[in-house]
Amino acid sequence: MLPRRQRAITIAETAGAGTLVVVHPWVGTWLTGHVPEIESGPSPFALPPIAVLGSAGPPVLVVSDDEAEAAMATGCEVVAYPGFGIGPLDPVGAAARALAEVLDGTRVAIDAGTLPVALAAGLDWVDVGDELASARAVKDPDEVELIRAAISVCDEGQRAARAHAEAGITELELWAAVRGEMERAAGTRLPVVADLVTGLRTTEVGGPPSSRIIEDGDLVLCDLVPRVAGYWGDSCATFAVGEPSAAAREAHARARAVLVELVASIGPGTVAGDLDEMARARLEFPHHTGHGIGTGYHEEPRLVPGSTTVLEAGMVVAMEPGTYADAGVRVEQVVLVTTHGCEVLSGHDLGL
Amino acid sequence: MLPRRQRAITIAETAGAGTLVVVHPWVGTWLTGHVPEIESGPSPFALPPIAVLGSAGPPVLVVSDDEAEAAMATGCEVVAYPGFGIGPLDPVGAAARALAEVLDGTRVAIDAGTLPVALAAGLDWVDVGDELASARAVKDPDEVELIRAAISVCDEGQRAARAHAEAGITELELWAAVRGEMERAAGTRLPVVADLVTGLRTTEVGGPPSSRIIEDGDLVLCDLVPRVAGYWGDSCATFAVGEPSAAAREAHARARAVLVELVASIGPGTVAGDLDEMARARLEFPHHTGHGIGTGYHEEPRLVPGSTTVLEAGMVVAMEPGTYADAGVRVEQVVLVTTHGCEVLSGHDLGL
Repeated sequence: MLPRRQRAITIAETAGAGTLVVVHPWVGTWLTGHVPEIESGPSPFALPPIAVLGSAGPPVLVVSDDEAEAAMATGCEVVAYPGFGIGPLDPVGAAARALAEVLDGTRVAIDAGTLPVALAAGLDWVDVGDELASARAVKDPDEVELIRAAISVCDEGQRAARAHAEAGITELELWAAVRGEMERAAGTRLPVVADLVTGLRTTEVGGPPSSRIIEDGDLVLCDLVPRVAGYWGDSCATFAVGEPSAAAREAHARARAVLVELVASIGPGTVAGDLDEMARARLEFPHHTGHGIGTGYHEEPRLVPGSTTVLEAGMVVAMEPGTYADAGVRVEQVVLVTTHGCEVLSGHDLGL
Repeated sequence: MLPRRQRAITIAETAGAGTLVVVHPWVGTWLTGHVPEIESGPSPFALPPIAVLGSAGPPVLVVSDDEAEAAMATGCEVVAYPGFGIGPLDPVGAAARALAEVLDGTRVAIDAGTLPVALAAGLDWVDVGDELASARAVKDPDEVELIRAAISVCDEGQRAARAHAEAGITELELWAAVRGEMERAAGTRLPVVADLVTGLRTTEVGGPPSSRIIEDGDLVLCDLVPRVAGYWGDSCATFAVGEPSAAAREAHARARAVLVELVASIGPGTVAGDLDEMARARLEFPHHTGHGIGTGYHEEPRLVPGSTTVLEAGMVVAMEPGTYADAGVRVEQVVLVTTHGCEVLSGHDLGL
């Protein structure tokens, strides 16, 4: 398979465009290696980084001055416009003018779900958002290493969850310890998507940590999804504080057995929908059986009913069967599809 | 002054449009009270909430099923499309179709810096992004209460920073305690922008917490900006761990005196640029002297050189003079401009 930038430009060319212009952060990181801040929403000082990819040369990143140094470190070309400062603010106009200088007026392929109107004015564009999303499914080797690093941060978080969970503290207190350990491991603050629910809340499938006080005998369902250097890790475990109920033991054993079976079944040639069907025949759960991870935290291949996607070596898949009847349980591992089967990338404890 | 929704629709009408369509989260929260998730970037399952405001009736929120319940709680009308689920994903198409059903084909006013191309196809639009940003400067009374609540969370964070800062721990460890206390106070996870730098790093003006180990005699510069229920708080203090240097004492005294003077000078009729000039005559710093806060963490009125903006009662302004030569120091308070002067909303300790 071609490296990812060549796959991306082929998508643009197939759509009749010579240039790709994207602001979607997952696509931008995938194409350029530049990792934009996402945690605080749109900046008052800049538009999101704009990645411009032609058929020759490295991508061009159109960013504000504030991001120029980080953007240059990727090896991309950088065109910068004024950002944070004490002058008048006009990030939209400044970004649009900088982009116009980079483009040569030909037809462009874009991600129409994220590219703002202000950047598309005057452009002859075609939307390739779906094609780019699909193209991210098979990872280049450098991407696999970045995902490994993100998953090792998940492993630290799961270790911290077990170490700190105890009756009498709140979910939010446990969360602070878990996030703190992940950020210590990464050496920096991290964007994190996470479910952290305990006791009866586990039957609600997921949710953010709350002020609920953990009680003896509770289950803790901890699903950690940190972004580390632009790539998302993902991991889930469910464990008991004190002695779990018989129902919890039974549910956990069933979910874990299904995960073992999924890992044993996945490999090149496996059909995504077949894995989903296998899990859904043994457990009742309202969500997908699994999904790809990479610069996005939920991407192709999606293990959902009826999916005809055929798995290929180089895909990275999170599998997360669960059951939520009397006791909510979910267990998750991430695997790399290899030429003969798969390699489990997750290293966390799955025990109850 | 008219309530904010009426101000917004007047902006649209002045631009020749009968309807306003926005996806910018700050503008959307301001118009609807709906608070979208922002911390993890674009969702694979949905577009950002789309707020549609006409001249009569409540706004319409076009959101995915996952957000429908929260959207309905705002009292807005809600049009929902499929979100997280086990079927095929088409959030862009689904959102665009749902929006098309809501609109009646007339000319619309938009925020062109954030509205994605996919939602604008076929629309006759005019950009009012700058006008909407300016209109947010004067707060309605309910907004002031929300900002008070966000600032009380800042106060808790500043208290935690002083309580937990000690030689031998890392900035990231201190950060975990500070964020944890803010989230405990709010009862939920929070988006937070923050500078947390110590020792010589304070001379770099700001930055995220790192693995640096705090040493005896260090300054800690802690600037906390959490979003609580859709409104951002803001606060900064600089304090010493152990005995500060003479240079640090002198810098801190100067910055604090300027802040006192700014608070004494601000009121209706004050020109933003004059406040900036006053601070900049006494201290050297590379950033703004202050800025508005609300559904955005940096908005009008901006206290920057040359600004001719005249302050009005109901504006909420963060003022944050600093000095960064030998020791980096910044102190910040948020005030509400009142009919006669201002009310200080910040309650945190500003001492060294």
